Amino acid sequence: MVLTGAEVDAIAGLLHLRERQAFSLYGAAATLDVLDSNPIFRALNPEFVTRRAMTPDAPFVPVDGAGVSMGLAITPYIVPGKVPLFAEGAAAPSIAEDGEALGLAISAGGPALHYIPGCAVMTPALRERLRGAACVMFDGTLWRDDEMILAGAGPKTGRRMGHMPVSGAGGTIEEFASLGVTRRILIHLNNTNPLLLDDSPERAEAAAAGWEVAYDGMEISL
Amino acid sequence: MVLTGAEVDAIAGLLHLRERQAFSLYGAAATLDVLDSNPIFRALNPEFVTRRAMTPDAPFVPVDGAGVSMGLAITPYIVPGKVPLFAEGAAAPSIAEDGEALGLAISAGGPALHYIPGCAVMTPALRERLRGAACVMFDGTLWRDDEMILAGAGPKTGRRMGHMPVSGAGGTIEEFASLGVTRRILIHLNNTNPLLLDDSPERAEAAAAGWEVAYDGMEISL
Repeated sequence: MVLTGAEVDAIAGLLHLRERQAFSLYGAAATLDVLDSNPIFRALNPEFVTRRAMTPDAPFVPVDGAGVSMGLAITPYIVPGKVPLFAEGAAAPSIAEDGEALGLAISAGGPALHYIPGCAVMTPALRERLRGAACVMFDGTLWRDDEMILAGAGPKTGRRMGHMPVSGAGGTIEEFASLGVTRRILIHLNNTNPLLLDDSPERAEAAAAGWEVAYDGMEISL
Repeated sequence: MVLTGAEVDAIAGLLHLRERQAFSLYGAAATLDVLDSNPIFRALNPEFVTRRAMTPDAPFVPVDGAGVSMGLAITPYIVPGKVPLFAEGAAAPSIAEDGEALGLAISAGGPALHYIPGCAVMTPALRERLRGAACVMFDGTLWRDDEMILAGAGPKTGRRMGHMPVSGAGGTIEEFASLGVTRRILIHLNNTNPLLLDDSPERAEAAAAGWEVAYDGMEISL
């Protein structure tokens, strides 16, 4: 299990894995600190679950619960993000590149798959990292930055939540247009996102721009 | 929302209610302390979710998120239980009656429904409280005390986990046999429990003893 951050939707599911499954749990320092500071995660018995720190830009070979190599190499790297919702103070958090949000480059010897469920903004460094990649699974939280406000679902923009929108200026489709990524797959879609509807105009627009939407059971061959 | 304890299965679901739903969150002191000591529960924004302490044996009228009475009266009371799994130390926890596990007597003016999802052992006081009740929803975690061990699902007995078994000596069926409770409904069934199977011999045995098994969407009229 590799954590890309400590937002509720990234870590709450760990509580469902408390029934003596043996696995290794990888996270950056900031993320493991959140687990350490919330005693409820002691429900993951250390006899079965080993927490292992990973360092941005340091490749590692993940091991399973028995310490056996899983035959992969993973390089975690920092992407722009924010502190988790529950760690926010009264003021809106600033977007930073301090390890709160990670991307992962995952390889089984061949081309890398990049997994980036949350990214607040495209940066020159991230652009160069992803240029020409075989596959990128990328933050597809919102189609429009103001989508939740328009839907009456909440007062925050996507960027305020640490997620760049898929459409529009500075959005994911635009930012990836010139990067030459072979497969582009949207993940982490919010329930307000019209991309969830197979027959929506937005889905057609994303598909025309070369984007797929991930689904349960999806298999990817690289 | 009324919490009967702070075990993972009682409180983890709160993290799914973080999207600005307004509600009141009731718990005993020990339970609210657990929420306070786990910052992840700050995801329940206090602007929408008010935590309200309840005191064993003190009836109260629950209010909704807007502070409006819900037209019910609830009396929480202590039943034998243990500290949550993640708060256990190295030694097996002792079963105590210290407020870690609660039952609720819920009434809308008529007869009370008793809701007791976890109970480690029947006590004389609990027996007298439940005698002649119109409806009791009761801890049905395990059919046999050693069920998880037999299934290879874990090393603990039900009693070790704070749950008396449904069957056998000192089990729920036996303990309720002379209490004259009109409707007896089992809740909180573990996934090893054969009562989950409609056509199991255990289900037939429970039914013959006057017990129902709760199901999603069940409605109860008192």
